[in-house]
This record gives sequence, structure tokens and C-alpha cells, in this order.
Amino acid sequence: MSSKDAVLFFLKDKQGDFVSGEDISRSLSLSRTAVWKHIQSLKDDGYIIEGVPRQGYRLIKLPDKLLPSEIRYKLKTTLFDKKIYYFNEISSTNKIAKNEAAKGSPEGTLFVAEKQVKGKGRLGRKWVSPSGGIWFSMVLRPEISPIDASKITILAGIAVAKAIKGETGLKVTLKWPNDIFIDGKKVAGILSEMSAEADKVNFVVVGIGVNANLSLSVFSEELRDKVATLKELLGAEVDRVALFKAILKEFEKVYLSLNEDSFEKALSEWKNLCGMLGKRVKISTLTEEIEGEALDINEQGSLLLKLFSGEIRTIYSGDVVIKK
Amino acid sequence: MSSKDAVLFFLKDKQGDFVSGEDISRSLSLSRTAVWKHIQSLKDDGYIIEGVPRQGYRLIKLPDKLLPSEIRYKLKTTLFDKKIYYFNEISSTNKIAKNEAAKGSPEGTLFVAEKQVKGKGRLGRKWVSPSGGIWFSMVLRPEISPIDASKITILAGIAVAKAIKGETGLKVTLKWPNDIFIDGKKVAGILSEMSAEADKVNFVVVGIGVNANLSLSVFSEELRDKVATLKELLGAEVDRVALFKAILKEFEKVYLSLNEDSFEKALSEWKNLCGMLGKRVKISTLTEEIEGEALDINEQGSLLLKLFSGEIRTIYSGDVVIKK
Repeated sequence: MSSKDAVLFFLKDKQGDFVSGEDISRSLSLSRTAVWKHIQSLKDDGYIIEGVPRQGYRLIKLPDKLLPSEIRYKLKTTLFDKKIYYFNEISSTNKIAKNEAAKGSPEGTLFVAEKQVKGKGRLGRKWVSPSGGIWFSMVLRPEISPIDASKITILAGIAVAKAIKGETGLKVTLKWPNDIFIDGKKVAGILSEMSAEADKVNFVVVGIGVNANLSLSVFSEELRDKVATLKELLGAEVDRVALFKAILKEFEKVYLSLNEDSFEKALSEWKNLCGMLGKRVKISTLTEEIEGEALDINEQGSLLLKLFSGEIRTIYSGDVVIKK
Repeated sequence: MSSKDAVLFFLKDKQGDFVSGEDISRSLSLSRTAVWKHIQSLKDDGYIIEGVPRQGYRLIKLPDKLLPSEIRYKLKTTLFDKKIYYFNEISSTNKIAKNEAAKGSPEGTLFVAEKQVKGKGRLGRKWVSPSGGIWFSMVLRPEISPIDASKITILAGIAVAKAIKGETGLKVTLKWPNDIFIDGKKVAGILSEMSAEADKVNFVVVGIGVNANLSLSVFSEELRDKVATLKELLGAEVDRVALFKAILKEFEKVYLSLNEDSFEKALSEWKNLCGMLGKRVKISTLTEEIEGEALDINEQGSLLLKLFSGEIRTIYSGDVVIKK
């Protein structure tokens, strides 16, 4: 932990009570000057800290930001104790995560942005990502074959769905391969990208976007009746830091124990959360459009589609529209 | 074409005859000084060019290097008219190709090295790559799904096999997924790496290594009876530039027409060149070791293995040992 984080965590632990500079200095073995400098730097980050002569400092208000130190505070995961890259604004967190992963970033490295100016959805599509949402990417290095990479998206879907449900109480459904829905509208999405040999995944970057504290007005008219935001659904802002940490915790739970048995369990969890199995769907893949019944998800995370002819087709990827 | 290449190609076209500096200057619309400078620069690259007063220049000898200008001379491909990065020595051409592809290098960009100091085989294995071999990587951007990425390795295998056969007359066989053999010994290999979403390949980097003009003594004793080099097999050095260009041409032929029908044709070509179908094999995958009969290669480039139980298993990747 950096000594700046130590000062912050010390103040946070006091839950708004005063603590003297001398106390901080002694407890953390820092000079008074160092404490003072860290306090100034925290104020620069947007923390509101009151300083009163003879009483000391107290933390009054946290900045509305997904700051690494806020994410780290009492996080208690083992996967995400690595470096957290934080950006006020960036092109796309997946893009920078892929670049850094190629240079060797360890598993668990996070890339967080308040705002993406070139947020990416699947197939190079745009993903609207202004301030107020949760936009981040994580580097993973699972020892799996590329054919199994879809499993990671399945696990991430479960984590996001459970975290949103846990933090907001809203009823969440999943749509294969990578969308999180509430009341039939998209509230979050996942973009997994991998670097791989034929035999082995080098790394997977999982990008997660959640329409948290956004107004619907930030979306184009065309999108407005297809998307939802937590703020609009709840009529109030969510605690983005808490939701972010919940996603990390839920993901770690399903990911760290990843093996055949645990994936089977995760998959049945996914299916329980899924709003499309058994329904008639139309799927657009890179090469065709096909209709049929969404029968099941197989052990590699692919969709089994039962065509009207009775033939069962394995679909690795595609856009799904649920037919009425 | 750069004006330096223009001067070189002009000299090459003369096939060793003298040409006056004035002729070059007039034909290429270059100043006499520019011509002189390019000649000096070509000499620095290792070209032996004789300059005789009142007769002019003549090209006597080419350097024994895989220089971009040598590769480009009369290459006549459309895929490989892009930038060629050339290195006397580099860590690994695949590594730099992946980095550059991530930044946007177009399809057909080549990365060539005389020597790799961290040459890579599959699964992070070392690939011995001293001076004298052919070590290069190409950037491809096929519009395919990751599940079809093995097709590219199949196509590259055909290209390398046909080029070696065409240039040397040696009888070449292929071993799934990515090895080129002569007389049961490995003479070349392919390492395909991809960056992909679940739906779509962003890019594929195909690395190709050919043990061209190497002595067996460069290999460790352990490897020495498993590998072959063209120089040892022929008792003479091969023209590396010609072989390199042949690989590019053969690859372009099978790659540019890639669609379902053409891949089927390529696949049957691959099977004809393959020395393992119908044989008993042992396969080590990431997770298991299995034995059976190598039955066929399917339309995605995966191996169909018939187990002793009669069950047919689809193998996406693994190490194959052909049993006696």
C-alpha cells in the first residue's frame, strides 16, 4: 500500500471522526510533513477533508470517482490486488488493457475510466460511455484453449448480474452471449477479447460496461428504448464504487475456482439467469441469419440452436433477437 | 517504390551488365548525386557494385540477406506490397508483429529477421533461429470467427510445403497442426497467433520458420535427430530470397481466394501432403493424453481422432506423436 493510501484508509476507518496529524504520523510512521502532503494530494483528488487546529483532520466527503484507492479499500480479493490503471478519460479501456497485457501485465490488472471517448461494443460497434457509468477492463491469464474462451464471458455475465442484483435489488436477466438486461432493456455489456495461439490463450481482456448513473438523454433516440440505466430504474444514483467492488468480488468467486465441475455449476447459474432459453430466436452471425429455438448453452459456452428442421446447430457467436 | 529501390532494380534488370550513372539518372529522373548516394547506400547494405570510369556501374553480387528490396523485386503479389520490417536481429518476429498489428498494421505487413534471439515455438517453447534460416511473420486480417482461425495455419502449411518442394525438389510432408517434415524430421514450423473477440478475429499473425541454410551443429544434441535443414539435405545452400518469395506467392494463392469451397480444396491438398492420416497417434493436449487413429481434418482445421472405443473426438490443438 502506498503511504498516501495508508493516510486515506486511516481517515476512512475513523468514519468521519477527527484524528490528529500527530496520531496519523505516529500510527503510520510518517513525518508530519508527509502526512500534510498526502492530505493536500487527497484534496486534489476531490476528497473533502476538514482540518481544524487542535482537533486534526476528518474526512467529510468522498469524490464521485472510481479511484483506485476507493476500489482497493477493504476489497479483500486476491485476484485484484495488482495495479489499477485509472483514467479520467481514455479512448477505450479494452484497447489499453490489450496493449499493456501484450507487454506482460499480470492477471488481475485493472483499467478503469470515468469516461471512454471510443468505447467499444462487439464487432467494432460504438459503446456509449460518458461520465457516470462503470467502464473497466481486466487482464486475465487463464490456462485454457481458445475454444474455451467463451466461458470467461459467461462467468463475467454471472458476476455482473449478481452484483447488480445484490447492490440494487433489481431483477436482472442475461442474454447470450454477453448482455445484461433489466425489463428487456440492456443495462450492461461485456466485451471479451483474447490473444491466443491455436493451443493456448495468451491472455483475455474482459471489458465491462454498466449504465450506472447515466440519464437516458445521453443515448441517441434510436437507442433510448433499448437501453436502461440503474439511475433511471432506481430514481436515484447507485454507489458506483460499491457496485464495482461487488462485480470484482463476484467474478473472483466464479473465476478462481474455474474447472470443469465449477463451470458446470456456473453454467447452470447462468441458465437460471438467462431469459432466452426455450424461446424462439433469430441469430445473425458473421455469415448467416438463422432462426430456431434457443435450446441450451453447451460446456464451451456456445449456444445450441434447434432449427425448424430439427437439426441442432452450435453457434459460437452472433446477435440474438428474441422473437415474440 | 523508393528511389533507392528504383536504382537497385535498374541495376538488377541489367543482369550484371554495365550501366552509366547518366543512364540511371535520366531513366529514373534522379540527380547524379542522388544516384551516387543510393549506390553508396546499397554498398553499405552488402551489395557488391563495381564502378568503372566511362563504363558506369554494374551489380556483381547480392548480399546474403533477406532484404526488403530483394523480397519486393518482381514479387508480383497484391497481399505483400505493404511495409516490410527488416531486422538483423530481433527477439521474435511474432512478438513485434503482434505489437504492430495491435497498433493497426495492414494485412500483408511483413516482419523479417536474419536472426531471432527469442524465437518462439508453440506453447512458449523455444525455436532455434540463428542466421541462415528464414524467420518471418505476416499480419493477416481475415474476416472469420476465431473458431476458423486454424484454417490459416492449414493454408500456411500448404504454402510452405509447396514452396520448399518447388524450390528444392525435396519431398515434403505435413504434420497437424503446424509442422513441415522431410524424411520424418522437422524442417519448418508455423506459429499462428490471433487477437479476437468471441465473434470475430481482429488479426492473425502467422510466424513461419524454415531451417534453410543452417548446420545441424546449431541444434542441441537432443534436437539434432529430430530436425533437418535444407542445406544439410541438399548438400548446398538454398537461395533464401527465392524460397521466401515462393512461400509468399503460394500463400497468397490459397489465402486470397479463401471461402468455403476453396478451403475444401486446400484441405484436400493438405491431406495429400499429410503423413499422418490413417495412422495411430498419441496426442498431448493441455489437459490430457489420448491415443487413437488420426481419422481426418474437419472443415475448421481440427483433427478428428478415433479412439479405441470407436468414439470420435474433435481435437483443436495438441502435440502429435505418430506411433509405429
